[in-house]
Amino acid sequence: MNISGMGKNRLEAFSDGVLAIIITIMVLELKVPHATDLGALLPVYPVFLSYILSFIYLGIYWNNHHHMLHTVRHVTGGILWANLHLLFWLSLVPFVTGWMGENNFARGPVAFYGLNMLMAAIAYYILQQQIIASQGPESILARAIGHDWKGRISPVLYALSIIFAFWSQWVSMGIYALVALIWLIPDRRIERLLTGSDE
Amino acid sequence: MNISGMGKNRLEAFSDGVLAIIITIMVLELKVPHATDLGALLPVYPVFLSYILSFIYLGIYWNNHHHMLHTVRHVTGGILWANLHLLFWLSLVPFVTGWMGENNFARGPVAFYGLNMLMAAIAYYILQQQIIASQGPESILARAIGHDWKGRISPVLYALSIIFAFWSQWVSMGIYALVALIWLIPDRRIERLLTGSDE
Amino acid sequence: MNISGMGKNRLEAFSDGVLAIIITIMVLELKVPHATDLGALLPVYPVFLSYILSFIYLGIYWNNHHHMLHTVRHVTGGILWANLHLLFWLSLVPFVTGWMGENNFARGPVAFYGLNMLMAAIAYYILQQQIIASQGPESILARAIGHDWKGRISPVLYALSIIFAFWSQWVSMGIYALVALIWLIPDRRIERLLTGSDE
Amino acid sequence: MNISGMGKNRLEAFSDGVLAIIITIMVLELKVPHATDLGALLPVYPVFLSYILSFIYLGIYWNNHHHMLHTVRHVTGGILWANLHLLFWLSLVPFVTGWMGENNFARGPVAFYGLNMLMAAIAYYILQQQIIASQGPESILARAIGHDWKGRISPVLYALSIIFAFWSQWVSMGIYALVALIWLIPDRRIERLLTGSDE
Repeated sequence: MNISGMGKNRLEAFSDGVLAIIITIMVLELKVPHATDLGALLPVYPVFLSYILSFIYLGIYWNNHHHMLHTVRHVTGGILWANLHLLFWLSLVPFVTGWMGENNFARGPVAFYGLNMLMAAIAYYILQQQIIASQGPESILARAIGHDWKGRISPVLYALSIIFAFWSQWVSMGIYALVALIWLIPDRRIERLLTGSDE
Repeated sequence: MNISGMGKNRLEAFSDGVLAIIITIMVLELKVPHATDLGALLPVYPVFLSYILSFIYLGIYWNNHHHMLHTVRHVTGGILWANLHLLFWLSLVPFVTGWMGENNFARGPVAFYGLNMLMAAIAYYILQQQIIASQGPESILARAIGHDWKGRISPVLYALSIIFAFWSQWVSMGIYALVALIWLIPDRRIERLLTGSDE
Repeated sequence: MNISGMGKNRLEAFSDGVLAIIITIMVLELKVPHATDLGALLPVYPVFLSYILSFIYLGIYWNNHHHMLHTVRHVTGGILWANLHLLFWLSLVPFVTGWMGENNFARGPVAFYGLNMLMAAIAYYILQQQIIASQGPESILARAIGHDWKGRISPVLYALSIIFAFWSQWVSMGIYALVALIWLIPDRRIERLLTGSDE
Repeated sequence: MNISGMGKNRLEAFSDGVLAIIITIMVLELKVPHATDLGALLPVYPVFLSYILSFIYLGIYWNNHHHMLHTVRHVTGGILWANLHLLFWLSLVPFVTGWMGENNFARGPVAFYGLNMLMAAIAYYILQQQIIASQGPESILARAIGHDWKGRISPVLYALSIIFAFWSQWVSMGIYALVALIWLIPDRRIERLLTGSDE
């Protein structure tokens, strides 16, 4: 039994716990309507659409986080705090989701949603760099993300969607959907490299 | 140490976390009454009945999910996303439970409850197919569910209950109770096959 | 790797998750006061006292649950459902705690709190019997609880406190505190027997 | 398989679960604004600042808790209850954070925040002593914290901030920020000692 492995397990368990709670308490923003006909659900639909979007985003983060942490061998203080920093921005997702949904995709909340996602993307990048730094020059993660165009294009798209929100929030929403689509396929390069090194 | 085993553990841990949170935050829909006599609990009873029903349903899903994932050897991207899709519909259970309970089993919410359960049943079926596909022709899960009449009859019963809700919600509620009873016995066939293959 | 061990781990993880959530979301019943002097906390104090009591009760349940499940070797369907039944009554603790606290220990809510605890104690007993039944005549748990006076006296005390609540709620509260004190010491007999059998 | 190791894993898992929930449900105190311009976020900013502070504090506790439990070999009843006692005070963090934030850092809530942190620090100290007592004279933890100036100065700083709050809450807030900064660097001494003893 080795000390870094243990630390990694608790880091994964804690992150999984936080992500599981974030993804689940979002449902508390879906306020139960007081009317009983199906039409009563109409005002809930923007919150519901935001809920779906954020659910997918958090699913993507959980998935990529899982693949990335898989390559960690030694949990340093830097990795630990970079991870908490990422969880911080993700923990705000229920708030920005609720604000965007309850105000029917008004421009301010839509831009703010993008800002939160931009900060999360930057936090994810910092965590990636901390892991690479801890692995040294022959880093398995560094090789895996060598051509990480997804990781590079996402913050740019978020920044664009923040700007576009003040002109048309629907362009921003389209960009959010696009980013989700881009990421929906897990980064198989890490998986392939890891499997390759196991054989 | 093998990569798929690790992934499976995190998938189980994350799913367990989400299911544990869903089953527990439902209690937040039970609003604390302001009066202090036991009669003050009277308006709470439909929410309480809905709570019991959903608690049993989620317990059944957790139980069956546990048995099904037990047969997984390699977590593919398809399994991962099919699992998140299932968790999505289950995450809405506190919402539909609250809507149904707070409106004293009105027809619209009762039908919507059935719709949510139908979507969850379909999501469960998709997850099952993804696991079978990943296991190839000699799939242990495919053999186990060879005569899975429960899995086949449940969506039909949910669909019926949605239709019946517009005529009498109590018929629908009876169907929901029936489905719960059918599933209350865990699927021992998977357990038997697995135990058999261990001996 | 054996199938029952795996099942036990997931059962423990799920139960721990549910208990951790129950014990934590109780804090959401502590409504943030709008005034800013320390006197503003005065109306919160009954909720706070109820919170402390329930926190200790849930801690005791977690602790005893942990020791009891330690003796389980094979998770049967009966154990699984008896465990969910126990979690059901414990999941209502935030509700009964909030009702009792927000109404300044009125008699109805105090009696109802006892009723919930009585049901949880009965559910705990059923789970114990399911585990003993699964272990057969040489059950390690059966020997450990051979003289389980705590487990036998607690339901009696809860029943008494329900009756007394209609005469004086403070007697009931005293009984609740007494039960907590009795249980605060973990059941070392199980621990001793297990340690003994390991040596 | 040994009984103390098992107990330690469940203690860690339960503590991680509770800490993950506490750190995440704090976001529920960030009430979604009804206006849609970015100015609508202005009243939320004190809650947001409190949120950041408490997020960092809880991250620090999780981190230090993780390092401290790493040295535990045998979970005694004393450790178990000292741990629950610590979790109790930490579970109140969302409440004191919400009270402080929603009242724009008024003096009463700021002092109360310090009081809660003081109690948590004392609970942490008691847990430390329980672990040291269980490890005997050659305690690895006792050696590691031999010159634990952080652990000794924190309660003093909290006590000072409680007193200062009645004169100027900003001095108190400065002290809270200072304590966070002091602790932000994980206690590498434990890590170093453990790594040293592994080599």
